[in-house]
Amino acid sequence: MKRAADSAIAPARRPKWGCPRGESDSSTRVDVDDVQTPCYVAYHAVVLRNAEQMLARAKRFGCRLRPHMKTHKTLEGGVIATGGTCRGITVSTLAEAEFFANGGFDDICYAVPITADKLPRAALLVERLEAFHVTVDHSSAVDALLERPPSAEKAWSVFLMVDCGYGRDGVDPEDPATVDLARRLAADPSKARLAGLYTHGGHSYDQEGSDVVSQVRRVAAAEARAVAGLAGRLREVGLEVPTVGVGSTPTCSNPPDALPDVNEMHPGNYIYYDTMQQCLGSCTEEDIAVRVLTRVIGAYPKKNLLLVDMGWTACSKQGQAMNYGRLEGHPELKVVDLKQEAGLVSSSDGKPLDFAKYPLGTILRLEPFHSCAHTKQHDRIHVLAEDRTSVVATWKICHGW
Amino acid sequence: MKRAADSAIAPARRPKWGCPRGESDSSTRVDVDDVQTPCYVAYHAVVLRNAEQMLARAKRFGCRLRPHMKTHKTLEGGVIATGGTCRGITVSTLAEAEFFANGGFDDICYAVPITADKLPRAALLVERLEAFHVTVDHSSAVDALLERPPSAEKAWSVFLMVDCGYGRDGVDPEDPATVDLARRLAADPSKARLAGLYTHGGHSYDQEGSDVVSQVRRVAAAEARAVAGLAGRLREVGLEVPTVGVGSTPTCSNPPDALPDVNEMHPGNYIYYDTMQQCLGSCTEEDIAVRVLTRVIGAYPKKNLLLVDMGWTACSKQGQAMNYGRLEGHPELKVVDLKQEAGLVSSSDGKPLDFAKYPLGTILRLEPFHSCAHTKQHDRIHVLAEDRTSVVATWKICHGW
Repeated sequence: MKRAADSAIAPARRPKWGCPRGESDSSTRVDVDDVQTPCYVAYHAVVLRNAEQMLARAKRFGCRLRPHMKTHKTLEGGVIATGGTCRGITVSTLAEAEFFANGGFDDICYAVPITADKLPRAALLVERLEAFHVTVDHSSAVDALLERPPSAEKAWSVFLMVDCGYGRDGVDPEDPATVDLARRLAADPSKARLAGLYTHGGHSYDQEGSDVVSQVRRVAAAEARAVAGLAGRLREVGLEVPTVGVGSTPTCSNPPDALPDVNEMHPGNYIYYDTMQQCLGSCTEEDIAVRVLTRVIGAYPKKNLLLVDMGWTACSKQGQAMNYGRLEGHPELKVVDLKQEAGLVSSSDGKPLDFAKYPLGTILRLEPFHSCAHTKQHDRIHVLAEDRTSVVATWKICHGW
Repeated sequence: MKRAADSAIAPARRPKWGCPRGESDSSTRVDVDDVQTPCYVAYHAVVLRNAEQMLARAKRFGCRLRPHMKTHKTLEGGVIATGGTCRGITVSTLAEAEFFANGGFDDICYAVPITADKLPRAALLVERLEAFHVTVDHSSAVDALLERPPSAEKAWSVFLMVDCGYGRDGVDPEDPATVDLARRLAADPSKARLAGLYTHGGHSYDQEGSDVVSQVRRVAAAEARAVAGLAGRLREVGLEVPTVGVGSTPTCSNPPDALPDVNEMHPGNYIYYDTMQQCLGSCTEEDIAVRVLTRVIGAYPKKNLLLVDMGWTACSKQGQAMNYGRLEGHPELKVVDLKQEAGLVSSSDGKPLDFAKYPLGTILRLEPFHSCAHTKQHDRIHVLAEDRTSVVATWKICHGW
């Protein structure tokens, strides 16, 4: 049976401070060649297209999209990802929850298992928002929630985190103890109610090879089966399970043919994508929406190396085996190492570089290996117009915990 | 011949806003168990001891210490590392240079090869400080400096970056073209003058095995020979070479028996150290001054895993092969994986964990694999008293470029 997720979701309303549209004014356009490097940029049109495609896909599957904010961590990205509603988002830290709440967002799900030490901040979010959801997967966390309701008027809205095979967090959906845990959680609606089930098919990232898309689709089917099956068992014992949610960018980019018993999707990376997602068959190179811009600051013909002003501080050091990403428009180049504030670039084929092509100051654009990790390294992202040169806005990135 | 570095260095003066001592007041001491996790903490006494030891070592070698700020990026760490003078530091970004200049520091060396696009900001630093030094290793960067002196009154103060075998940036000290480059740089003192030679024996990090300390010492000797030899050749052609500097934490922690032709050392990591440095023989576990604090937020006996609220956002993902560091006081535990906002901890020996020992909320302390990388992930660091529990100060970490 297809269940509507609406009961778990507050109605959209006009955000208090309006939907933010970026700090910069379009009358002060600057050329990206004039910005300091290293810096982080997004191709606006690609961000919009990625967001629209996922919104449309969720709709096609009869699901609500609750986009994860952890990849971009910007108010503006949140507006785009929610299709302008600013309602129904997923976050990975309480700092993100507060950042988006301050920016006028509502119906926010904190998708990391919560523990007693974080309840005071969570309670404040419950109080100020129409809907703030927490997740749990452990009986002592349920105890903590029941011992400390957010206020006399409001109960906790709780997602049960389900392990669908990823092997990270989450309850075992097949374990009878999971049904007992859910019953105990929902026993006193004045203290807590079950918002639904939340799972992340993160093992989709472990797939590889020429058949990767079929493998990802199999993970996607298993992800949906895990939560749908548990939802059925919980309903059999009389529990309400308003939301049944799945989500990882690979499984949501290559979903099964149908998701009959699921009503929410919560991917995040898709708004930017990256070369890792391209390898997983989630996207094409054209869908990768962000770049790190860097300038050539050294040239060493004897070592066949260029030095760039992009170290792991601007990229993270993830993706070493995949050259940390790809230098856009330069298949002849690859990043071979990243130091703290400088990177080394050499030829892809080991042949001598034509150094005259890359004078000091030349700007290169790295398509990131893992855009979530790149976002963490920057305080802001410059947004580029269709020409991929004019900076039309600069979005502030949320940090901390 | 031993040359004094003093001519390149401005005399110490009282910093404009005094030496900062941390944001917190000692009357508002808080227990570290009450701070939110994940967070980054430093053991104050260990920081002081590490700093004092390196200051004493530099003095013993007749060298001035120009500590690198990139590991801690805090004003307070800079005060400690300079022995309170706030004079003579090394930075890795212009943002750091401005941050320390704003904090009352002077005689700052920006130790990444500079290019034309960064000269306007560098010129402002030359103007406001008694001494701001840039580094170059390429003829077209020298052209850019000579074409654009910082002001009518002041010339550029320039370190020549020397490759002593690390293979990253720097001129080849044996190449006759290097002497020509230095002569051209120093030809017109109204535009630029040679501050000295700067090298980083970063290949010390590639050493391993039971004989690692001897190998590091050999790198240290080669590092010193490279710059001392070039300094000699430059002086033979009549150039002044006020400063001859070496520096990496491994080579400065295990220096050769003497450094007769070197007068400056510029290591940075030593102020915090980390498990990587311990492997390199630079320090013992007792010298590692920083930790990431994290709480247990999940427990999964079937998977023999604990979940902690420390992901790669709080640690970086460096050091995977070395379990991202070491959990202090828990040799029975190791970090097996880091996701964005959560980490997985299992038993070191593969045996079943005693889960009763680690209830949800238990605080674990990670000795970092690479403290420079951890610093980048945090906006502040809590400083703990001798009891390693009371937060006596919170230092702001500089970010950006």
